[in-house]
Order: sequence, then C-alpha cells, then structure tokens
Amino acid sequence: MGSTGDIVAQAVIPAAAVIGIVFALFQWFLVSRIRVSGDSDENNGFDDKLIEDEAEEGVDGPAVVAKCAEIQNAISIGATSFLFTEYKYLGIFMVIFGAIIFLFLGSVKSFSTESEPCTYTKDKFCKPALANAVFSTLAFLLGALTSILSGFLGMKIATFANARTTLEARKGVGKAFVTAFRSGAVMGFLLAANGLLVLYISINIFRCYYGDDWEGLYESITGYGLGGSSVALFGRVGGGIYTKAADVGADLVGKVERNIPEDDPRNPAVIADNVGDNVGDIAGMGSDLFGSYAESSCAALFVASISSFGITHDFLAMSYPLIISSMGIVVCLITTLFATNLFEIRSVKEIEPLLKQQILISTILMTVGIAIVSFVALPANFTLFNFGNEKSVKNWHLFFCVSIGLWAGLVIGYTTEYYTSNAYSPVQDVADSCRTGAATNVIFGLALGYKSVIIPIFAIGVAIYVSFSLAAIYGIAMAALGMLSTISTGLAIDAYGPISDNAGGIAEMAGMSYKIRERTDALDAAGNTTAAIGKGFAIGSAALVSLALFGAFVSRAGIKTVDVLTPKVFVGMIVGAMLPYWFSAMTMKSVGSAALKMVEEVRRQFSRIPGLMEGRTKPDYATCVKISSDASLKEMIPPGALVMVTPLIAGTFFGVESLAGVLAGSLVSGVQVAISASNTGGAWDNAKKYIEAGASEHARSLGPKGSDPHKAAVIGDTIGDPLKDTSGPSLNILIKLMAVESLVFAPFFATHGGLLFKWF
Amino acid sequence: MGSTGDIVAQAVIPAAAVIGIVFALFQWFLVSRIRVSGDSDENNGFDDKLIEDEAEEGVDGPAVVAKCAEIQNAISIGATSFLFTEYKYLGIFMVIFGAIIFLFLGSVKSFSTESEPCTYTKDKFCKPALANAVFSTLAFLLGALTSILSGFLGMKIATFANARTTLEARKGVGKAFVTAFRSGAVMGFLLAANGLLVLYISINIFRCYYGDDWEGLYESITGYGLGGSSVALFGRVGGGIYTKAADVGADLVGKVERNIPEDDPRNPAVIADNVGDNVGDIAGMGSDLFGSYAESSCAALFVASISSFGITHDFLAMSYPLIISSMGIVVCLITTLFATNLFEIRSVKEIEPLLKQQILISTILMTVGIAIVSFVALPANFTLFNFGNEKSVKNWHLFFCVSIGLWAGLVIGYTTEYYTSNAYSPVQDVADSCRTGAATNVIFGLALGYKSVIIPIFAIGVAIYVSFSLAAIYGIAMAALGMLSTISTGLAIDAYGPISDNAGGIAEMAGMSYKIRERTDALDAAGNTTAAIGKGFAIGSAALVSLALFGAFVSRAGIKTVDVLTPKVFVGMIVGAMLPYWFSAMTMKSVGSAALKMVEEVRRQFSRIPGLMEGRTKPDYATCVKISSDASLKEMIPPGALVMVTPLIAGTFFGVESLAGVLAGSLVSGVQVAISASNTGGAWDNAKKYIEAGASEHARSLGPKGSDPHKAAVIGDTIGDPLKDTSGPSLNILIKLMAVESLVFAPFFATHGGLLFKWF
Repeated sequence: MGSTGDIVAQAVIPAAAVIGIVFALFQWFLVSRIRVSGDSDENNGFDDKLIEDEAEEGVDGPAVVAKCAEIQNAISIGATSFLFTEYKYLGIFMVIFGAIIFLFLGSVKSFSTESEPCTYTKDKFCKPALANAVFSTLAFLLGALTSILSGFLGMKIATFANARTTLEARKGVGKAFVTAFRSGAVMGFLLAANGLLVLYISINIFRCYYGDDWEGLYESITGYGLGGSSVALFGRVGGGIYTKAADVGADLVGKVERNIPEDDPRNPAVIADNVGDNVGDIAGMGSDLFGSYAESSCAALFVASISSFGITHDFLAMSYPLIISSMGIVVCLITTLFATNLFEIRSVKEIEPLLKQQILISTILMTVGIAIVSFVALPANFTLFNFGNEKSVKNWHLFFCVSIGLWAGLVIGYTTEYYTSNAYSPVQDVADSCRTGAATNVIFGLALGYKSVIIPIFAIGVAIYVSFSLAAIYGIAMAALGMLSTISTGLAIDAYGPISDNAGGIAEMAGMSYKIRERTDALDAAGNTTAAIGKGFAIGSAALVSLALFGAFVSRAGIKTVDVLTPKVFVGMIVGAMLPYWFSAMTMKSVGSAALKMVEEVRRQFSRIPGLMEGRTKPDYATCVKISSDASLKEMIPPGALVMVTPLIAGTFFGVESLAGVLAGSLVSGVQVAISASNTGGAWDNAKKYIEAGASEHARSLGPKGSDPHKAAVIGDTIGDPLKDTSGPSLNILIKLMAVESLVFAPFFATHGGLLFKWF
Repeated sequence: MGSTGDIVAQAVIPAAAVIGIVFALFQWFLVSRIRVSGDSDENNGFDDKLIEDEAEEGVDGPAVVAKCAEIQNAISIGATSFLFTEYKYLGIFMVIFGAIIFLFLGSVKSFSTESEPCTYTKDKFCKPALANAVFSTLAFLLGALTSILSGFLGMKIATFANARTTLEARKGVGKAFVTAFRSGAVMGFLLAANGLLVLYISINIFRCYYGDDWEGLYESITGYGLGGSSVALFGRVGGGIYTKAADVGADLVGKVERNIPEDDPRNPAVIADNVGDNVGDIAGMGSDLFGSYAESSCAALFVASISSFGITHDFLAMSYPLIISSMGIVVCLITTLFATNLFEIRSVKEIEPLLKQQILISTILMTVGIAIVSFVALPANFTLFNFGNEKSVKNWHLFFCVSIGLWAGLVIGYTTEYYTSNAYSPVQDVADSCRTGAATNVIFGLALGYKSVIIPIFAIGVAIYVSFSLAAIYGIAMAALGMLSTISTGLAIDAYGPISDNAGGIAEMAGMSYKIRERTDALDAAGNTTAAIGKGFAIGSAALVSLALFGAFVSRAGIKTVDVLTPKVFVGMIVGAMLPYWFSAMTMKSVGSAALKMVEEVRRQFSRIPGLMEGRTKPDYATCVKISSDASLKEMIPPGALVMVTPLIAGTFFGVESLAGVLAGSLVSGVQVAISASNTGGAWDNAKKYIEAGASEHARSLGPKGSDPHKAAVIGDTIGDPLKDTSGPSLNILIKLMAVESLVFAPFFATHGGLLFKWF
C-alpha cells in the first residue's frame, strides 16, 4: 500500500487546496463585478441601469454611490493602516519569540549536532535536538505568517465587499445577501485552503531533511500551530479592543446622549467603529480559526507520528488529518452552491434559515465524506500510543471520533442560536426584563449566559468521552478536526455578519433611503446570530484542540499520570482556572478605559465643533481612529504576555506536573467563561434589536427606539460588547495557545523544568 | 500518655465550648440592657435621661422610640415566620434525605448486621455497614438541627439588636457600634461553641457503641458535616433569594423611579427588605459558616482516624482539630475585648480600622495558640495515611499547616477589603466610570471582580501546596480549620454588617433625624466591607475544606489516582466546572423573576393606594413579604436539588472516578465564580455609597444623589445584589456540599457505583 498510498495522499491534498483557492478567487471575481464608483474611471461604475429604476426619489442615485465609494475607501485605508501597524508589533514579537523557541529547544542537548536515540523507539537514531529547535522555529514563523495572511486577506475582501453589499441592497435583499455571503466564502475557502497548502508544503520540505525520522518531523511541525495561534491571540485581543472601544464609545455618546442613530455620519467615532468590525471580527476571527485548524492538525499529526502508521511509515494513513480537511473543502464547496445558486432569498425571513441550513447541509455531507476518507486512508487495524500503553484501534473507530466532533459542533451551533437569536424565548425574556430597567436586563442576561453553557458542555463532554475512549488523544484531536472540517462554510457564515454590519453602516453614512437601511439591518440581525454560532464553534473546537494538545504535551513531557490529588497538579489547576479571569479582567478594563477616552473625545467634538450636530460640518474621524488604534496596540500586550509567559514560567520553575495542572484548570474553567461571555453579549445585542425591529406585539410594547426599555436594552448591548467581542473569543485562544506552547517547549521542560524544586 | 491525654481532651473541649456560650450570653445580656419600648411596661424604656438631651428638636423622642419598637417587632415577626416556614420545608428534606442516606449506606452490605474486616486495617474486625448507615443518618440529622439552631439564634439576636443599635446611635456612633458589635459577637460565639459542643457530645455518644472502632466512628461522624452544609445551602439560597428579591424590587421602584430614599417607610417592600437581611445575610450566613466549620472538623477527624494516632487510639492527638477550635474560642474572646472594652470609637473613621484590627489581632494571637496546641496535643512524630502510602509527619509540620490556613485567610480578607472598600482606588475607579453611564460602570465592575480573584487564588494555592506537601490531606483539612479557627471574630464582624444595615433602616422608617441616619450609614458602610471580608473567608475556607473532603472521599472510595487524562475524570471535570454556572443561572434568574414581581406589586401599590406617596396612608407590607417568601421557598428547590442530586447521579451511574472529576472541576471553577461575584457586587455597592457620601473632591464631582453618575451607580448596585448575596455565597456551599456528600456516600459508590459502565 505504502507507495500507492503515498501518491494518493500527495495528489489529493494539494488538489483540494488548489480547488479551494480557485473557488475562492472565482467568488471574489463575481463580487468584483459589482462596480463601485472610483474603482474604474470609465463610467463611475454606473453601467447598471436597474439601479436608477429602483432608486427612491433620487436619494440612492449617483451621488450616493460616490459617497459609498468614499466611505469604503476610508474604512479600507483605516483597516489596512491599523493592520500594518499591528503587524509591525507582531513582527517584533515573532523575532523575539522565534529566538526564545530556538534557544530553549536548542539548549535541551546543549546545541549538540549529534544524532540521538529516538524518544519513543529507543533502538533507532533520530535527528539532534538542535534540528528540532531550527525546524520548530521555522514552523512557528510559517504558522505566524500564514495566520497574518489569513487575517489580512479576510480584511481585504471584507472591505472590498461592504459597499458592494450596500449597493446591491438597492436591487433587493436577495442580491445583497448573495454578495455578502460570497465574500464570506472567499475568506472561508482562502483560509482553509491556504492553511492546508502551507502545512502540506512544509511537511514535504521538512521531510527532505528528516527523511524517515517522522517523530522529529511532526514534533517540529507543531511550531506551525504555535505560530498560528500566537498571532491569532494578538489579532483577537488587539482587534477586539479596537472595535469595542470604538463601538462602546460611539454608542454611549451617539445613541444614549445625543439620540442619533447608530452609524450616523455625524458621530466622530463611526469610521473607527466600522474599521473595527474589519480588524476585529474579520481579521481577528480569521486568525483565530486558522489557529484552531493548524493546532488540531498538528496535534493529530504529532500523535499519529508515534502510532503504528508513524512507525511503519504509512504516509497515506499518516496524512489522514489532512485528507479529512481536504474532503472538508470539497464538501463546503458543494454546500456553498446551495446558498449562492440553488436557493434564492426573496424575503428577509428566509435569511436566517438559509444560513442555518448551510451548517446542516455541510454536516450531513461531511459525515459521508468522513466515512469515505476513514475507510480509504486508514488501515483496518492499527495501534495508537496512549501514555505509555498501546491501544488497538479500528478505522471505523476513527470515523466515529471525527463524526462526533462534527455533530457536537452542530449541537453547539444550534444551542448558541437558540440562546442568542431573538426568535426564541430566552432573548425575548431578556428583552422583556428591560421593562424594569437596565439592572434586571443585566441580571437576566448574565443568567442566560450562564445557562447557555449547559448543553454545549454536555456536547463537548460526550464528544470527549467517545473519542477519548475509542482512540485516546488521537481520537480527540480528530474530533476537533471533525468540528473544524466544515470551517470554510463556518467562516463564510461568520464573515457574512461583519460585512453586512459594515454594509448597513455605509448605507446610513451615505444617507441612503430607509428602505435600503431596512434591508441591510435584516442582513445584520441574521449576522449577529451567525456570529454567535461561529463563536460557539470556535470555543467548542478550542476545547477539543486544547485537550488533544494537552495530551500530546503530557506524552512528550514523559509524565505517566496527571493526578489531581498531588499538590503540584492541584495548585496548578486552581491557578490555571483563575487565568481566564485575570485575562478577562485585563481585556474588559482595556476596553472600558479606551471607551472612556473615546467618549470624552466624541463629547469634545460634539461640543467644540460648531455645526456638527446639524450635519453642516464633518467630524474629525482621524482622532477617534487614532484613539482606538493606540489603545488596542498598547493594551494587547499585557494580556498577550500573560498567556505567552505563563506556560514558560510554570514549566521552567514549577515543572511539567504543575504546568499540566495549569493547562487542565484553564481549559475546564476557560471554556465556561468563554461560552457564557459570548452568549450573554449576543443575547443583549439581539434583545436590543428585537425591541428596535418591533416585529411582534410583545416587541412593540417594549419599543420604540428611545423608550425606557429600549434605553435599558442599549445599556445591556454596550456591556455585552467587550464580553462577546473581546474577552469571550480571546479566551479560546488562551486555552489553545497555552497548550500548544507547552507542547512545543515540552522537550525543554522535561529536561530543565521545575527549577524551583531542584533548588530547594 | 493515653489516659492523661484523654482526660485533657475531655476537659478542654467542653470547657472552651461552655466559656464561649457563657460569654455569648453575657454579651446578649449587655445588649438587652438597652430598653426598647414595648419590652417592659414600666417606663417605656425611657429611663436614660441622656437621650432627651441629645434628641434633635424632639424628632428622636419617645414617639420615635415607640415607632422603633414597632418596626423591630414587624421585622422580627416577619423573619421568624419565614424561617419557620423554611424549616418546615427543611424538615421534609431532612426526613427524605435521611432516609436516602440510611438506604444507600445500609445497602452497601445488604443491611447485614455482621461485623466485617476494617477497611484500612484488614486484620481487625469493625462494626457492620448497617451501623454506619444508622449513625451517619443520626449525625446528619444532628448537623442539620445544629445548623438550623445556629441560623435561628443569629436571626433572633440580630432582630433583637437592630432597633437597640438605632436607639444607641442617638448617644453617639461609639455606643451604637458597640451594640452592633456585641450582638454580632453573640452570634459568633454561640455558633462556634454550639458547633463544637454538639460535635464533641456526638463523638462521645457514638463512642459508646463504636468503642475502639474509630475508623467507623469518625466515618459516620462525617454525616454531621453533610447535615450542616445541606441546611446551609437551602438557607443561603432561600434567604438570598428572599432578601435580594425584596432589595432589588424596593430599589428599582423606590430609588430609581420614585426618587425616594432607601428604607423609606412609604416603600411597600421596605419591611421585606429588612426581614431579608436577617434571614439571608444573618441566618443564611450563620448556617453556611457553621457548615464549613463542621465539615473541616469532620474531614480532619476522618483522615486522622486512619492515621497512626487513630490506630494507636491516642484520643488527645485525635482531638487535635477540636482543641484547635477550642483555642480559637478563647483567642476570639480576648480579641473581642479589644473592640468592646479596650478601644472606644469616637469618630466614624475609626470603625473600619477597628474591625480590620480585630482580624489582625485574632490572627496573631491564634498563631501562638496553634503553636501551643500543636506541641502539647500532638506526638512529636506520627504517620498519616496518604492514598495508600504512609507519610511521616512531625508536630511542627501541623503547626505550619494550621497557621498557613489562618494567614491565608488574613490575606484573602485584606485583599477583599482592598477591592471592595471605597477607601481604595479600585472602587473609586468603578465610581468614576459612572461618569459615562451604567454600561461602563458594569464593565469596570465585572473587570474588578475578575481581577480580585488573582491574589486570593495564589493565597489558597500556597496554603494548599504547603499543607498538602507537609501533611497530605490531613494538612489541608487542618489548614481549613486554621482559617476557620477565628470564626467567632469573623462572624461577629460579619453579622455586625446586616445589624447596622437594619439599624439604618429602622432609623429611616421611624423618621429619626438626619444626624442619627448619618451615624447608622457610617456603621453600614463599614459593614459592607466586612461582609465582603466575611464572604472572602467563607470562600477561601470552602476551597480548602472541599479539597480535604475530596481527598477523604478518594481515600474512602479506594481510588489510587485521579488522573485528568482519563475520559471519565476529564469529562467529570469539565461538567463539574460547568455546575457553578448552571447553579448561578438558576439563582440569578430566580432573583430576577421575584424582583420583577416585587416591582409590579410596589408599582401597583404606589399607583393604586391613594396618599401613599405623600405618606398619608400606610403601604401593604404584608403582600411584599409574601412575594419574597413564596418566591424564595419555591425557587430554592431547583438549585438545591441540582447540588444534592449531582453527586448521587454521578456516583451511582458514572462511578467514583467521574465523581472525583466532577468534584475537582466544580472546586477549581466555583471558587473563581464565587470570589468574583462577591467582590463585584461589594464594589458596586460601595461605589454607590462613595458617591452618596461625597467625602472627597472626586466623590462630590460625581454626586449628589440623583445625579446621572449616581443613577448609573444605583444600577450597578442593583445588579450586584444577587451576585454578592445570592449566587456568590451559595457557590461555596455548592463545592463543599458536593464533596461532603460524596464522602458520606463513598462506601455505596465504591460498592455499587458506575452502573452505566457495568450495564454496557
């Protein structure tokens, strides 16, 4: 089988990646056919006669199109310039941390260049520890760069698509939807395919040096996951602070004090707010999910390399995780066609069901895909390494592992939707509690968030139990990859949200008619829910990935058991469980402080700039952009440092057992904080939208905009912003990143760790 | 040594308990000398001529005293009637759960009455499992009754002292302080001494049957802890819902909508609010701390019974935990004299330092006390049982274990004070954030709560590490007991808070002058901080107690390791870590719903009862009392059931490993939620008080009452109410109770547990 299998794997993976990239570029091309004035000098993009027919009393005519182009340009420039500044910081970080990796791992055998006995098969010789240092550093840099690329491309397409979605909204909600969704798909497919391709190429290049030493090869490849996730952390935190400082600041003065609509062009923070959506929700999230994907692949590959097909050098079986991802790209491609070509959105109510359907279709198709891959790529029987013991596994066991991860994702997604969509009673109850003011709204919202943790945790628990029992740590890594296998569709849906949000903002700022604004609002409301679903997936997969990485770390560090009832482990656990709180305290406070500054600036402009409130003069957008930008770059460092430094300190000074405790504690505690924070925030946002939309008798009794219940709802929404877009989604990176970092540094900790106990 | 030691232990423990009780009764007598009209018919309590001299324009004269008596009476009747209703429910619960204990434990050996080989020393014969069932049930009932008694006595003295404190406030802040503090001391000493005495007597009675089978004796004694804690749970949850439904409801309409002061007699919910302080903060907390105390004693005794002095039947060494508690009573007695006799409060600013000093003095004295007890009661060398291994321990090791618990408590207390007192920057920052509205106030408050977790967790971590390393599980149990050794002082300080709160309420309702109200407000503000400190102690000790009980459970269940990286344990952990969220969701929602009902009723009364707002007619207090009462009795059942049923389900169906995971997960996660919830709530409350008091330039810039920042602060305070007085403090019972329940049921789970895995 060896050689044929090798060829199959070598053909299928790059083929799927290329298909994904081509498909993404084709979607991009379709979106680019919508002309925005300023794109070309020929005809100001106004070749589509339909528009004028539908334009309402001329307000949506050529002047407005020019305005849209101008705003799009401002957002794009703002986002690009912020990301470039952020990347400068990240560049410095990468150099420093790359050096740390090299020095720590190189020092394991004092930078010796001699071969040494392999860790798991002692009778063979493997490459020196120094090679691991070099290649891990290289993999780290590759992962970091791919993560940056993923975020950047996402931002580019999103800022390219936002005004186009607005303009298409003139033709109807269906057209606008397809534009936003296609653009999301560009991001989804580019990210999944690039991630796969870079990983595939790296493995093949590393193989030139490592040859048959797969243990060393896949150990160094784990650096790819670390690079991806560490960039994601800074992207999520920095972007999260940026967007929420602007959002909270804009809302507090604009909506609460001045009583002007969201995204009103008179609000000085409005451009910063829209830029924020792109750098936080798009670029940050892109890097985040890429990180999860890279890490679960690395965890699976690492564990596989010390299993029977690693030892017998069965490249096809070895590549099982990558082939699952390849299959995922194909499945998502088919799924996308359902949304863009088979169905057509005719009314606002069809949007949310269509998006939900996407997840269901991809899950069903993928289950078939997993079955095919499992029976073709894997031998019928093989053995896995399970903390010093061997475990016999069959290929259909793996089918169950991957599938249960996939379906657990669906359960988490649907639960999240139930708790955050205003179509169901939980959010409606929260909206109803606004009747008695902001305090009850917050109490109900917090309670909702806490409650929404229950089902996802049971879903994760069942997935862990089944996959762990069937195929040990490899099973968990594959369950994580199963949950992420439909990442292209997940990301498409997720990115659709901020694009629609931006489209709405542009419509408002360009002064488009009420009709258009209503359409973009409907797109946005659906986007809110899908964003929450996306976060649910991100957290669920992060929990599985972290556990897989944690298991791999324990294997690599040579610990036999992680016994809760030993002082080192237990103290590690309770401290680890505290870290999500420490981290959240930092990020919440950062958003709060930056928002305070923003509020002062916006208030200053409203009171100092004559004619601003009347719309006669333009606000000074640039100062607000600068406040957000400076705050996020400065404030992303302490929480980032907390996450990056903790495993190093714990491992170096307190040893691998303590570090194992820290990882376990932060995992079980962080998941809860992350889910409840995201869902509480999502619910408040949609409770507010529920009152604003006034679609039912009940909703109208709470409204309209400006009523006391609505004001209470706005306060809840504002509190939820940092919870759902800064703290919550960063926490899943916290738990993943600490785990992958521990895995990469495991050889160092195992050799030199626990200094404090060695000294005393 | 045996016999002499036996006599020493048999003399010292009851002596200390009796001294404590006598001291408490003497304090009660001193408080009772303050006459409230209605107490005696002779002179309407107005024999103190000083009062008339200080009374301001006659407003604080005889009519007001009569009014105070009337209000006190209403509060006392309300509290007593609620507690009796609650105890009826608890009675039913005790019968049912007692039966469950008997049936489960009896079924371990099919209700056989034959002796059997001991669990730890296999060559000897021990009493049958049926005896364990009988005596565990008995101990459970005794613990439950003592817990009820503790809460009830606390409530009685508090409702006896509240009006007396108000009346003494006419003579000056110092007199009022001493009255409130003495009353707190009555509760503190009664509770500690009763708890000790009942436990001591039970052990001696059980000994009549068990004889030399100490293993069986102390195993069945653990039922005492279970009884204490399960009553505490319902007390805390029920009382917490009662008090906060009333408080939130009263504030939302009174303060926010009608703009009338807190505790204004026109507010229909005001009596319910004041009753709530007594049933929640006093009775609930009393039962809670009694539970912690009983559990840590039981955990220590259980572990000791299988150590070398258990086997050699050294009763003096065996009684070490009880002698430490006895010493604690004596130390606290001396400490109390500092506050009541040695110092005198002359100005408002001296209150908080004096209360803080109490903790410091008792900690320093107790350290000496621990040294004495450790060197006298313990043999110089002995061996402890450590999960199947033996561990050699010296008496000075134990000195360190107990002391580190004690000092960790001090660190936690002072940290809590730093984060919740408005004398320091954290609360001032939160107050400052009210400038931009309720949303930033909530964001900053949540961040503060998250941040306040860091130092306590490190303090607990260090205490665990040291005591675990020195003396295994016994060390942890003793560290917990060390933290609780100054419980009398801790409770005195803690109970002082709600008594002052009530005193202020009575002053307002009786229409006393501004001067008096200002004095009671100052007492109350200090009480807020000490309440937070008390909660800090309760949570810190709960963490240690739970770990000790968890360890004892693992020993008893015969598990060798609790390995995180096994599916059963890990899934147990992640589910366990979720439980505090599930529980909080229930309690928060209960408070929210009950508060909504209360708001509607209060609004109804204001709009329907003519002349209410003008003070011409009396509101219908009884309906509000009924709403709080009904809501709390109905709503305490689901969260209570969650906590009581989870260990039974986990142990019976999923087995002891899963249950061990659940305990570990809920412990490490619950501690964080509890600390952050308590401190966030405390900080919001004091941020509001900071603005109201206007003691600094900064504070005045945010005020006065009714300003926008003040309104924002009131919203924060209202949100904090259920966090700090319902969810937060109940969570420490959750983690303790699940652990002690697991320990009591361990023989059953070890024999019949894990049904699900046996079936499949």
